[in-house]
Amino acid sequence: MKYTEGGVTAAKGFRAYGIHAGVKAGREKEDLALIACDLPCNAAGLFTRNRVKASPVLLDIETLRNGQAQAIIANSGIANACAPNGMKHAEEMQTIAAEALGISNDLVLVSSTGVIGQELFTECMKEHIGDLTAKLTDTPEGSDLAEKAIMTTDTVKKEFAVEFEISGKPVRLGGIAKGSGMIHPNMGTMLAYLTTDCAISVPMLKKALKAACDVSFNRISVDGDTSTNDSLIILASGLAENEMIAAEGEDYDQFLAALTDLCVNLARAMAKDGEGAKHLITCTVRNAESEEKAEVLAKSVIRSPLTKAAIFGCDANCGRVMCALGYAGENFDPDRTDIRFVSKAGSIEVVKDGLGLVFDEDLAERILSEDEVLIDVDLKEGGSEVTCWGCDLTYDYVKINGDYRT
Amino acid sequence: MKYTEGGVTAAKGFRAYGIHAGVKAGREKEDLALIACDLPCNAAGLFTRNRVKASPVLLDIETLRNGQAQAIIANSGIANACAPNGMKHAEEMQTIAAEALGISNDLVLVSSTGVIGQELFTECMKEHIGDLTAKLTDTPEGSDLAEKAIMTTDTVKKEFAVEFEISGKPVRLGGIAKGSGMIHPNMGTMLAYLTTDCAISVPMLKKALKAACDVSFNRISVDGDTSTNDSLIILASGLAENEMIAAEGEDYDQFLAALTDLCVNLARAMAKDGEGAKHLITCTVRNAESEEKAEVLAKSVIRSPLTKAAIFGCDANCGRVMCALGYAGENFDPDRTDIRFVSKAGSIEVVKDGLGLVFDEDLAERILSEDEVLIDVDLKEGGSEVTCWGCDLTYDYVKINGDYRT
Repeated sequence: MKYTEGGVTAAKGFRAYGIHAGVKAGREKEDLALIACDLPCNAAGLFTRNRVKASPVLLDIETLRNGQAQAIIANSGIANACAPNGMKHAEEMQTIAAEALGISNDLVLVSSTGVIGQELFTECMKEHIGDLTAKLTDTPEGSDLAEKAIMTTDTVKKEFAVEFEISGKPVRLGGIAKGSGMIHPNMGTMLAYLTTDCAISVPMLKKALKAACDVSFNRISVDGDTSTNDSLIILASGLAENEMIAAEGEDYDQFLAALTDLCVNLARAMAKDGEGAKHLITCTVRNAESEEKAEVLAKSVIRSPLTKAAIFGCDANCGRVMCALGYAGENFDPDRTDIRFVSKAGSIEVVKDGLGLVFDEDLAERILSEDEVLIDVDLKEGGSEVTCWGCDLTYDYVKINGDYRT
Repeated sequence: MKYTEGGVTAAKGFRAYGIHAGVKAGREKEDLALIACDLPCNAAGLFTRNRVKASPVLLDIETLRNGQAQAIIANSGIANACAPNGMKHAEEMQTIAAEALGISNDLVLVSSTGVIGQELFTECMKEHIGDLTAKLTDTPEGSDLAEKAIMTTDTVKKEFAVEFEISGKPVRLGGIAKGSGMIHPNMGTMLAYLTTDCAISVPMLKKALKAACDVSFNRISVDGDTSTNDSLIILASGLAENEMIAAEGEDYDQFLAALTDLCVNLARAMAKDGEGAKHLITCTVRNAESEEKAEVLAKSVIRSPLTKAAIFGCDANCGRVMCALGYAGENFDPDRTDIRFVSKAGSIEVVKDGLGLVFDEDLAERILSEDEVLIDVDLKEGGSEVTCWGCDLTYDYVKINGDYRT
C-alpha cells in the first residue's frame, strides 16, 4: 500500500470540483462541491447519532437504502439543520445536481455544513451548477477544490489517497474530509467522502466502512460536541476490475486494511486541525483487560478540558490525566497505572504505580512543546490496546466559537 | 427561613478559623482551615465518585462510618492525591488536629485540595496548629478565614447561612464551599462544609444530605472534569434543642427545605465562579416526560463547550443548544422544542417547534451580556422540570489551566 495524490479523484471513474456559489452572504471562499462518478456506484454511509439530524442527513439515509449512488453535492456556510423548509431545500439540491448530471435523483447524495437554524436557499446553486458540472475533473485539482468547498473553520486540507493490490489488481482509494469544531467520537461536524474503484458488494462495503470508522473517526474528539450533520460516505465504482469482494477473506482484509489506514489518517488530520488547536494529542491506553475499557479510558483523557488546557500550556500535569482516567467510569487499579509523555523531543515517565514522580520539568516542557504529543497509559492488567486522538484547548477555540455565526 | 451572616459559625457550638501555614512554597494566602464543634456531632458526608480518590477522601469515608465527627481540618495548595505517602500524611493531619483540640482521632475529618501528584508535608501544620486552635472563633470572621483557606482559583467567597424554625425552635444552618475548576455533576473539586445546630439522627442527616446534593451540587458543571478530592460534609451539633428528627415528617421537611436552599445557593455560586467564568448559565428544561430526562438534557446544554463559548461571546447561537440537546442521548421530539434566552435585560425566543427563528440580534446580545443568563427549553411533552447551572468557556479558563501547577 502506498500513499498517492488525488484524494477523491484518485480512483478510476471519479471527477470532482468546488466553486464559490455564494451560499452564505459575505463568505468569499469555495462553498459548493460536487463529486461524480461515470457510472452508478455501490455506496454506503454512516451518519450522526445526534437526535437532531439535519435535513440532508435524513435525505441521504433514505437515498442510500438501495445501496447505490453516483454523485455527492455538498455546501458549506449553512448547515440546513433546525432550519425552515429544510427537507425542501435538501431535495432541491438533489434535483439541481441530478438534472445537471443527467442522472436520477435517487443517485445523488446531499450534505450541508455551517450555521444551524438559518434557511438554506438554493438559487445560487441553480445558477452555478452548470459551471460546476462543466469543470468536473479527474485531476488532483478537482479533489482539492471539492475539499476547499466543504471546509468551514478548517485551516488545513484533509485529503489522502492510497493505491494497493487486491489479488494482483491495482486498486485505488481516496478521501477528503472537513472538521473542525464539534468533533467527537461517534462523529462531530465532520463530512468525509471516500471513493474507490474496488469492486465490492454493498453489504461488504457497509461492513468495512463501519469497522474502519469505529477505530478512526469514532476515536477522535475535539470538544465533545457531536453535530447534527456528520456524514461519512463511500462510493465504489468497481472499475479496478478486481474480482467482486462479496464475502470475508483475503481480498476483503486487504481492502479493509487500506480503508482503515486511510480513515485513521483523515481522522488524525481532523483532530490535529481541531478548532484553535496547537497540539495533536494522542492517547494510547495499553495492557488493558479489554479493548472497550481501553477505549473509554483513552477517550476520557482526550476529552478532558483540564488535560487539554494543560497540554496547550506545555504543562506536564499528570494529575489531570489520572483524574480523567478516574472519572471515565471504568474499573481499573490506579495504584498500578503508569503514565508517560512522549514526543519527537523524547519520553518522560510522570506517574509510576499511581504516584506522581519528580521529573525533569525542562525536558517535560520540551516534549510537550512539539506539535504532536503522545500520552501513554499502561494499566498493566491485560493485553488490549487502543489509541484515540484529540487536540488541546486554546484561546483560539474560545475565540472562534465565541462569535461563530458572524 | 431567612439568610443571615456567619457561614459555618452561624450554628450554635461551632468555631472556625483559617491561617497561612505554608503548605505549598511560594503561596502567600491562608491555606489551613479548622472547623470545630464544642461537642461530638452527628455527621454525614458525600465524596467523589472518581475511581482515583485522594487519601483524605479515603480516610474520611472510614472515619464517618460511625456517623460522628467534631472537627474538620483542611488545606489548600496540595491535593494529596496520587502522591507519595498520601495516607500517612492524611493521618498525620488528623492526629495534629485531634491532639490540638484534645479529642480522639476518629472525630476529625481531613480534606486537601490543590495540585495532584505532589507530596504533602505536614511539618508546617504541626508548627501552626497551636496558633490556629487558639484563634478559633464563633464570629463570622472565623468562617470567613476558614473559607479563604480552602480557596484555590476561586475569586469569590461562597458562604451562606440560614435561620429557620422547626416546631417553633430557631435552628441555624450554614456552609462554606470552594470550587472552581473540575466542577461537574457528581461533584468537581469542590469542598463544602455545612454545620447546623439542628438535632437530627445520623440516618436522617445522611438522607437529607443526599437529597439536597442531588438537586444542587450534582446539577452544576464547570468543565466536565470530576476531581479526586470532592467532599461535602455536614456536622449537626443538636444545640438548637429541637426535638430530635429521627423520621420523615414536617420537621424533616423543614430541615430538608432549608438544606436544599442553602446547597443550591452554594452550588450556583460555585458555577458562577467557575474558572475564568464571565457568565452564570442556568438551563431549565421544562415540560419533560420525566425528571431524569430533563436532567440529562439540561446537563448536556450546560456542559457543551460550543454553547459555553457562544455565551461567552454573547452570541445567541441557538444551533449550539439544539445540538447539545440532540446528542444528550435522550429521546425527545426536536420538532416540538422551543428555546428562549432570558436575563434581566429581557427574554427572546430563538427556536420555535425545532426551527431557528429570525430574531432581534441587538436585543439578543443585550440579553446575553448580563452576567446571569437562562436558557429555557420547553419540550412540550410532560410535566417535569429540572434546572442545572454552569458557566461560560473563556480565554481565562484556558489561561488558568494552561499553567496551573506553577
